[in-house]
Amino acid sequence: MKNIKLTISYDGTNYHGWQKQNGVNTIQLAIETAIYRLTGENVDLVASGRTDTNVHAIAQVANFITNSNIFPEKFFVAINSLLSDDIRIIKSEEVDLDFNSRYSAKKKTYLYQIYNRKILDPFYRMCSWHIPYELNLSLMESSLKELEGEYDFKAFMSSNSSVKSTVRTIYSTSISKDKDIIKIEITANGFLYNMVRIIVGTVVEIGSNKRDIACIKKAIELGERNLLGRTAKPEGLFLKEVNY
Amino acid sequence: MKNIKLTISYDGTNYHGWQKQNGVNTIQLAIETAIYRLTGENVDLVASGRTDTNVHAIAQVANFITNSNIFPEKFFVAINSLLSDDIRIIKSEEVDLDFNSRYSAKKKTYLYQIYNRKILDPFYRMCSWHIPYELNLSLMESSLKELEGEYDFKAFMSSNSSVKSTVRTIYSTSISKDKDIIKIEITANGFLYNMVRIIVGTVVEIGSNKRDIACIKKAIELGERNLLGRTAKPEGLFLKEVNY
Repeated sequence: MKNIKLTISYDGTNYHGWQKQNGVNTIQLAIETAIYRLTGENVDLVASGRTDTNVHAIAQVANFITNSNIFPEKFFVAINSLLSDDIRIIKSEEVDLDFNSRYSAKKKTYLYQIYNRKILDPFYRMCSWHIPYELNLSLMESSLKELEGEYDFKAFMSSNSSVKSTVRTIYSTSISKDKDIIKIEITANGFLYNMVRIIVGTVVEIGSNKRDIACIKKAIELGERNLLGRTAKPEGLFLKEVNY
Repeated sequence: MKNIKLTISYDGTNYHGWQKQNGVNTIQLAIETAIYRLTGENVDLVASGRTDTNVHAIAQVANFITNSNIFPEKFFVAINSLLSDDIRIIKSEEVDLDFNSRYSAKKKTYLYQIYNRKILDPFYRMCSWHIPYELNLSLMESSLKELEGEYDFKAFMSSNSSVKSTVRTIYSTSISKDKDIIKIEITANGFLYNMVRIIVGTVVEIGSNKRDIACIKKAIELGERNLLGRTAKPEGLFLKEVNY
């Protein structure tokens, strides 16, 4: 019995997110189906976390238990040959049996991509949020810095989620612009449901002078979702890295 | 009566190329339909040249004659609002009535994109040729240089095309690599059918030591298609610029 850890890259456009659900096409289902065709085993693929419809991954992590004698380091090649090319396993390795992609995760980094020019480049329509007007990047950077640290991020969560604690630690944030692409990165010990997209939606409103930077500290203090901006669209979001 | 010149960017993935054909979805049909809905006119959109299925454009040029009194510089905004977002008009302007996108073109530049890493990034599957092995870039550059100048490029043309003259002038070529992306650019006074894709297919075979660089001069001399490499896949090809 082996525990195999996979590192996975995907374009989420054609899937209803990561999580297996009845009757719809999801990333988890696609990979579990490929593993079944390869090994004959119905494995239970545990990911570091779910991603929503139209959200992508540069390096999602998932693991599964198998009795197959395929070399762990070669597993990814075999699985890829049975997957459509909008999902690519970029690495496979054997890990300790008690490794769990979700519960062992120490840190996660998300990237959010904004296409910031008048006319959208057609190739960015599925992997960015198109903002045609100018944004104040230094104000956006200051807004992100306000979020760094350990706080109760209750306000930064979509209402339809239930978790025990809403306290998280944001270790670092960054914003950069290269040509027309703005990249926002956030690293934390964990994220609440829609947390990155609410942060980005808020920071963009601050950067276009529709909302005051003070709303961030106030929202942390009062825990009220309505003090913040709209939830940014899913297409711009990428799970970039998971650290263990 | 006005002659309107459009500069157009598109992701060719969901279209059967530029050219209008019975019963299939093409870029030309999509834009002519949008113009019809806007002006009520059945215009005849003349492009600088056709692009094939799965070939893209950064800046295709096309023009049409209209009696509409929409401001020429505003036309693109109105057309875009009626198009799906895999086609974007990036500029519209009034030009002389004798301007013809095809016959007035002096120079064209094509870009070909290669994704050069073991595992394909899912986001590049529709806009690159995936080559997982190492390529000799300096050898590829030398091969491209062999093509610069005025020559009879008969060998660099797919057999199912008929043109009066197969003499063209290649003004410049370049190859560059940034991270995993290799970009090949070729500027000429005109291109034969599949010429860029045959050049790229050949140059890649030279860069992976499957074919000798001498084949290029020999193919120019003898005009024989079979002295060259395979036609590179359409997904990596972009019409980058047309000069008038």
